[in-house]
Amino acid sequence: MQIPSTFQPPPRVLMGPGPSDVAPSVLHALSLPLLGHLDPVFVQMMEEIKAMLRAVFLTKNEMTFPVSGTGSAGMEFCFVNLIEPGDEVVIGVNGVFGGRMVDVAERCGARVTKVEAPWGRIIEAAQIAEALKGRKPKLVAVVHAETSTGALTPVEEISRLTHEAGALFVLDTVTSLGGCPVRIDDWNVDAVYSGTQKCLSCPPGLSPVSLSPHALAIATKRQKKVQSWYLDVNLLASYWGEQRVYHHTAPISMNYALHEALRLVLVEGLENRWRRHEQNHLALKAGLAVMGLELASQPGHQLWQLNAVSVPKGVDEAVVRKKLLTDFDIEIGAGLGPLKGKIWRIGLMGETSSRANVKKVLGALVKILNEAGQNIDGSVVLAAVDAVK
Amino acid sequence: MQIPSTFQPPPRVLMGPGPSDVAPSVLHALSLPLLGHLDPVFVQMMEEIKAMLRAVFLTKNEMTFPVSGTGSAGMEFCFVNLIEPGDEVVIGVNGVFGGRMVDVAERCGARVTKVEAPWGRIIEAAQIAEALKGRKPKLVAVVHAETSTGALTPVEEISRLTHEAGALFVLDTVTSLGGCPVRIDDWNVDAVYSGTQKCLSCPPGLSPVSLSPHALAIATKRQKKVQSWYLDVNLLASYWGEQRVYHHTAPISMNYALHEALRLVLVEGLENRWRRHEQNHLALKAGLAVMGLELASQPGHQLWQLNAVSVPKGVDEAVVRKKLLTDFDIEIGAGLGPLKGKIWRIGLMGETSSRANVKKVLGALVKILNEAGQNIDGSVVLAAVDAVK
Repeated sequence: MQIPSTFQPPPRVLMGPGPSDVAPSVLHALSLPLLGHLDPVFVQMMEEIKAMLRAVFLTKNEMTFPVSGTGSAGMEFCFVNLIEPGDEVVIGVNGVFGGRMVDVAERCGARVTKVEAPWGRIIEAAQIAEALKGRKPKLVAVVHAETSTGALTPVEEISRLTHEAGALFVLDTVTSLGGCPVRIDDWNVDAVYSGTQKCLSCPPGLSPVSLSPHALAIATKRQKKVQSWYLDVNLLASYWGEQRVYHHTAPISMNYALHEALRLVLVEGLENRWRRHEQNHLALKAGLAVMGLELASQPGHQLWQLNAVSVPKGVDEAVVRKKLLTDFDIEIGAGLGPLKGKIWRIGLMGETSSRANVKKVLGALVKILNEAGQNIDGSVVLAAVDAVK
Repeated sequence: MQIPSTFQPPPRVLMGPGPSDVAPSVLHALSLPLLGHLDPVFVQMMEEIKAMLRAVFLTKNEMTFPVSGTGSAGMEFCFVNLIEPGDEVVIGVNGVFGGRMVDVAERCGARVTKVEAPWGRIIEAAQIAEALKGRKPKLVAVVHAETSTGALTPVEEISRLTHEAGALFVLDTVTSLGGCPVRIDDWNVDAVYSGTQKCLSCPPGLSPVSLSPHALAIATKRQKKVQSWYLDVNLLASYWGEQRVYHHTAPISMNYALHEALRLVLVEGLENRWRRHEQNHLALKAGLAVMGLELASQPGHQLWQLNAVSVPKGVDEAVVRKKLLTDFDIEIGAGLGPLKGKIWRIGLMGETSSRANVKKVLGALVKILNEAGQNIDGSVVLAAVDAVK
């Protein structure tokens, strides 16, 4: 065959739904020479990763570590370990990822009750309360930050109702972790999963997870073996725990990257990082407003890190998105499912969340829309951005 | 919490069962800025990876791509897609990884017939023939190169018998691919998985897999949904195929690394690479022989890339292994299961397989054993190494 040339990616500003931009020190960490996965020095680094993940999840859960797969593997990790065939579960569905949870749970043999909300809106606690009437499910699961719609579902009351019903509370924090408050212990979350490529600004490839002691006990005392060998917490606990029993070969370089990415999160400080995400979201929103563009997600529950922008009438969203990529090296995301063609998804996650990037994407959008016949004054847009804090 | 310092790995020569040493250009590829996983430039690179994997597997199978997990995820990929509950399967077990296949298959609901051989020996075709008498299994699976024992099972005759019985042939090439002949189409293999961190000398984190059109048809026509959402080939086919339907976020940086690692394999040439592995194995073996050390695996079927060395009487294998690591920065592997304490596993995989490394590990072993009271003439050992080719 014709052997391909060495790959050289073009420069991009990653303002889609993830991956986000990665800090130079994280890229540097990826390039360090490898250690064996049972090397005492690597094992010590694994311990540091676990401790930093606990700090970022705001949990004391011992069973906190990165699954060796992407966020969807973390989702599957939670469900395969907690569900046995025939178990009843309640799942909130208000976008792609709630729907995915249903699919994963059903593949584990669960009988699923869906609690649905229109895409862009949150799952209301009252809906969960209604679904729990007369039911004794094993678990209730919701998506904290729906990446497909830009909506942030408040989960404290849902968690309370869940535990009142004697169920486990499972939370998807793939897009929320590191970009807005996520408080696993305060919120009494039993099982949580996330991704590295969103607000942690580490490349995709690992999925941080955490199980409460109660959830872990349920996983270890189950009747039937976990259907996935790769994701069985009973095996993973011996590998990531004190025994260091060989299970699989951990992705060494990706763990180097996660170590450095978590360090950067903690050096910045969670509160500072959340505030940065909030302020850049407000700045983007202010600029969009001047342009006559609105967010499609439910007012009062809009994500800071992922902005679903309604495409104005008469504008071909795909053409604009392609121009952003080819003419300005800016990647933004398209709508999915019922929102296909109706929204742009502008990510301001982790490293990407900066005032400079807000201005860059708005400036590019102004140029593209004006070329298409609109008449937006870019300087007014930028002034609105600057006016935020 | 006390934020850990930036991680800096100590230098190591990785001569264990994997990961192996990684070439500088592969480490450089890891450090390149990220692209989105649906970026046309990334998608084009995915196509190149698929083409290069076909060249390395020596197959025309369209469904050839890297699973976003380590080698064990690739194993699980093959079994969850091909097995439905109640299916009968035959699995060769002559080490850790055959045993793991049994566990994974049983979690898929398979009725497993084990064909066993003592650790260190191969699975004989006659044993498979015997197991197939009066049975109509859905698949037969064996491990090509048993990393836990250093034995290479010839598979052509096993494949022939398997197809004669109307079954699919599944092959584990985690340790063989890139280090010795692996001919997927010539050998009529229906499903194969490998790892990146062995003879491809890419960091761990991806698992190259390939399905024949026949295996793919069986996976797509199954009655029951694949129990793993993450590994369902029906979903992955749309993501890695022409449609590019979003499934999960591919590990961008790891795919950069695999692209470069595969390039290096093809630039060297498969035949040259296999010969290099063979010659360095023979050189190591010649040096060991002078020292009175023997390989534990079956004569005539010893792996070139992973050498199981019998620990001489009176020597504490763990002490020697630790000294190699701490005093010489050389990692070798320990024995597993029934071979624990009885063998050292010296890997000569990919980048690690060089004459310099053979001399390095033998020189260090001579020093350590002499310090412990033996009287080995190091110059004679090195002369034996040099005498090979």
